[in-house]
Amino acid sequence: MEPYRKNFQPIIPEAIQDIGRVVFEKKHECTIDSEIGALFPHLVPCSVLKGASATREHVEKKPLRVGVVFSGGPAPGGHSVIAGLFDCIKKWHADSSLIGFLNGPKGLLRNICKELSQIDVDSVRNTGGFSLLGSGRTKIEAQEDIQKVIDTVKAQNLDALAVIGGDDSNTDAAFFAEAFLQQGIRTCVIGLPKTIDGDLQSDDIPISFGFDTACKVYSEIIGNIGRDVSSAKKYYSFIRLMGRVASHITLECALQTHPNLALISEEAAQQELTLKALVVKIADLVEERAKSRIHYGLILVPEGLVEHLVDMKHLIAELNEFFAPTHPLASLLVACSKPGERLDFVLDHISERSSACLALFPRHIAEQLLQERDPHGNVQVSRIETERLLAGLVEAEIHLRSQKAGKEIPFVAQTGFCGYEGRSAFPSIFDCTYCYALGRLAGIFAIQKMTGFMAGFARLHESFASWEPLAVPLVSLLHFERRKGAKKAVIQRVLVDLQGKPFSLFKNQCASWRLTDSYQQPGPMQFWGPEELTLPPCLTIRLGQG
Amino acid sequence: MEPYRKNFQPIIPEAIQDIGRVVFEKKHECTIDSEIGALFPHLVPCSVLKGASATREHVEKKPLRVGVVFSGGPAPGGHSVIAGLFDCIKKWHADSSLIGFLNGPKGLLRNICKELSQIDVDSVRNTGGFSLLGSGRTKIEAQEDIQKVIDTVKAQNLDALAVIGGDDSNTDAAFFAEAFLQQGIRTCVIGLPKTIDGDLQSDDIPISFGFDTACKVYSEIIGNIGRDVSSAKKYYSFIRLMGRVASHITLECALQTHPNLALISEEAAQQELTLKALVVKIADLVEERAKSRIHYGLILVPEGLVEHLVDMKHLIAELNEFFAPTHPLASLLVACSKPGERLDFVLDHISERSSACLALFPRHIAEQLLQERDPHGNVQVSRIETERLLAGLVEAEIHLRSQKAGKEIPFVAQTGFCGYEGRSAFPSIFDCTYCYALGRLAGIFAIQKMTGFMAGFARLHESFASWEPLAVPLVSLLHFERRKGAKKAVIQRVLVDLQGKPFSLFKNQCASWRLTDSYQQPGPMQFWGPEELTLPPCLTIRLGQG
Repeated sequence: MEPYRKNFQPIIPEAIQDIGRVVFEKKHECTIDSEIGALFPHLVPCSVLKGASATREHVEKKPLRVGVVFSGGPAPGGHSVIAGLFDCIKKWHADSSLIGFLNGPKGLLRNICKELSQIDVDSVRNTGGFSLLGSGRTKIEAQEDIQKVIDTVKAQNLDALAVIGGDDSNTDAAFFAEAFLQQGIRTCVIGLPKTIDGDLQSDDIPISFGFDTACKVYSEIIGNIGRDVSSAKKYYSFIRLMGRVASHITLECALQTHPNLALISEEAAQQELTLKALVVKIADLVEERAKSRIHYGLILVPEGLVEHLVDMKHLIAELNEFFAPTHPLASLLVACSKPGERLDFVLDHISERSSACLALFPRHIAEQLLQERDPHGNVQVSRIETERLLAGLVEAEIHLRSQKAGKEIPFVAQTGFCGYEGRSAFPSIFDCTYCYALGRLAGIFAIQKMTGFMAGFARLHESFASWEPLAVPLVSLLHFERRKGAKKAVIQRVLVDLQGKPFSLFKNQCASWRLTDSYQQPGPMQFWGPEELTLPPCLTIRLGQG
Repeated sequence: MEPYRKNFQPIIPEAIQDIGRVVFEKKHECTIDSEIGALFPHLVPCSVLKGASATREHVEKKPLRVGVVFSGGPAPGGHSVIAGLFDCIKKWHADSSLIGFLNGPKGLLRNICKELSQIDVDSVRNTGGFSLLGSGRTKIEAQEDIQKVIDTVKAQNLDALAVIGGDDSNTDAAFFAEAFLQQGIRTCVIGLPKTIDGDLQSDDIPISFGFDTACKVYSEIIGNIGRDVSSAKKYYSFIRLMGRVASHITLECALQTHPNLALISEEAAQQELTLKALVVKIADLVEERAKSRIHYGLILVPEGLVEHLVDMKHLIAELNEFFAPTHPLASLLVACSKPGERLDFVLDHISERSSACLALFPRHIAEQLLQERDPHGNVQVSRIETERLLAGLVEAEIHLRSQKAGKEIPFVAQTGFCGYEGRSAFPSIFDCTYCYALGRLAGIFAIQKMTGFMAGFARLHESFASWEPLAVPLVSLLHFERRKGAKKAVIQRVLVDLQGKPFSLFKNQCASWRLTDSYQQPGPMQFWGPEELTLPPCLTIRLGQG
């Protein structure tokens, strides 16, 4: 497969075909919160710019030195961004250089990098993952760390630095851009929107790259399981999908595969669903289907679901307080040496409501929740395997109902997790095309010395050739959030819009998927064959979301 | 995808293109154990027959009534077998009928079936799973059950009954064939070799259907994870693969993806590996890689692995004895009401060796092992999630080594399971072609009133057109095994041959995969595109194994 994919030539949007003839003009002005504006005096006021092919005044073509870094979890298409950027600056001038920083932001801090050769870049064209450079999650927020980045870009004499990352990395990039301008560093900073979760988007950036591929990889698996469930006819499959904050992936995969039930965290939060109510909701489905002698089903669960349940939010907040060293009962709690003891102690001393919620958990999961805490002392609710928790609770509920009715309701659960296999898959034709174009656009920003922008395209739901290049000020994506108790300017993660087109389409259909099986099996992603199968991006993008 | 796959027309091997002109002749005589022969007086002596296109004497074309049933877990290609069979008997005579029994052997026992229409069959051509008829695991061994099958085939007036199943179902089919002949029932019995595990094979049947597709689906996932592991560079992925008895799937997927380590149950058994030695083996790999500052890796584990470890075999045997109601300590054991108590009691009372082995287990897994037993009272070792057990034990071992060395060896494990998504996937072009040809061959057996044969093809590693049709006597696949304490004639599951070509190829390469990453990423199965990607079956088959 790899040799064939490496030879794939993505279509280039018409507006950026001639890299020397792209002219940007204002699309619309950005409204920036004044407090945020105050943090970025060199970048504000600002506007979203749109690019078009037109005659520019002649610029002398000098070689460019551009740095690039991957940040955070891999997403399919990262290598294509690099290929697009490399081809662009080499086309601009054969002596241009692309410098890849290794193992994520750490490489940027320590100036650990390598100049990428034609062979390096050709070896990863249209392949998945971030294996060319590696990645990492180091945050660069402290002033001294930003200074280290400045040392690096000065040492490397960079015309531009391209940051391929998610919300946090692009937040950091906004601060780099401001600091560089402030200190008169000529290096432009360019952001590239990466995350399979699809929650890095705005009115101007319809979607982050990698989302399309990940959803296609997961939908293949879910579709296969749906077919298996309706072949074996004897088990419920609970499949957990990536997406801790937002449920875009679960929503898209539900639209692709038509499960009997797909839970959307944002809806659960809006409905103020409790864990118990959720279990009842699923058990009702099982019972209703059992009345038609159907003892199997397909249920999708976003990994972040439990954190969005109203009683779980309370429980978590209460546990975090309870475990603080300053809590009056702290010494008594520490004295509970056995995990079982500790659970009983906690159950006795938290609020009735939270106690009832925690008591629902199977003991070993509850004990695990109390044992493992993150470096800030918070309970690690993210460690809970939501699909296993729900399958276990539904089993107990169905058992109770069976006893009550004096008649067994058959219920067998299997669980699965669609995880890392979606992050480093071969990118879809959409993602290959999108990412190559993003990289090329980043190169054009470097040529035109544009700093503090995220590269993006409008009209992603139209044909590849007609995409409209955009320069979206990173600052325009920022808002304030409380993090670790402090107010911080960060890029907002965009949740599923319960008024948006994808969710509305889902709500219109999902009732009909409950009892009558309508499982869809999209099959493996195809790179050749009917255009209808190979070219279109996933539904969220086709609907023009964002 | 589905509409496109439904229109796919598989190539038909030349020898069976003209269904009226297939002539079978003896390929070789079968050597049958005399005790087994005594059970099948109407079927023995017998020979493997090979088919070729030749002029046959004219036979009057009468409509045929053929029954078909799925048995056991789904495998990709089952629907193609039905399509091949349907097309064949309809081509023979337009008034022929194909009767599908529902929900597996249960449908056969109770005569629950439906006649399949052209629309039914067209709706599932080249699709995965067994959703058209459902399946089940009911065994039909008792004389009275066989009598019920006889009632069914008489009531349905069947010319032939095609059993699409694994080793157990084809064993049952052999007994049906004998019983039918004995009682003068004219219904021919035809076996079709199904199982993704690939352990239903013989000198004449190179592979069961579904294996190729399942391995391709799993290799896609494993290849993606390999790319992710070498992108994130911070975790070991332990992936469990299907295959409780034989490790064919793990071996094939290892050849496709080149993990750092792939464990093969058959080799572990031959080497008399203990659980502790296995953990040391994996920890050595982790430590060696850590010396080169590599803190990630890819490890494949067949689900049956722990059952093949010498100390685990002893432990399991001992536990099964210990839990027998006749055991002298039974009443004391029952008195241990808490799971923890029971574990301590067991640890104190089993042999030192088994106690040491069980003590290695994390307590909650050990407790689970003692709590859950199958209907025969045996511990359910199959419930152990091998990949989680090993990841946990390796973590503990690495922790110990770090302490000893006074220097931390970083180790983070992620676990995954390649399971049911491989059973009901869209069949590969190989499996579509193989299964359609198998179904057509079964139809030819029905036309020629051949009973007690399994349909098969030789030369599966050659071009589709040149495959050689075979009729393999079901009886020739039987051997004696002890099951539930009694000697039973069953079809032997074929293990990985440690002298065979696939394993030799693996052994020649696997040392070079340990430290230097050579992960391969086969990508998603393609139905269109370069023939090199779409047509060839997996390596096990290409090597002419079997």
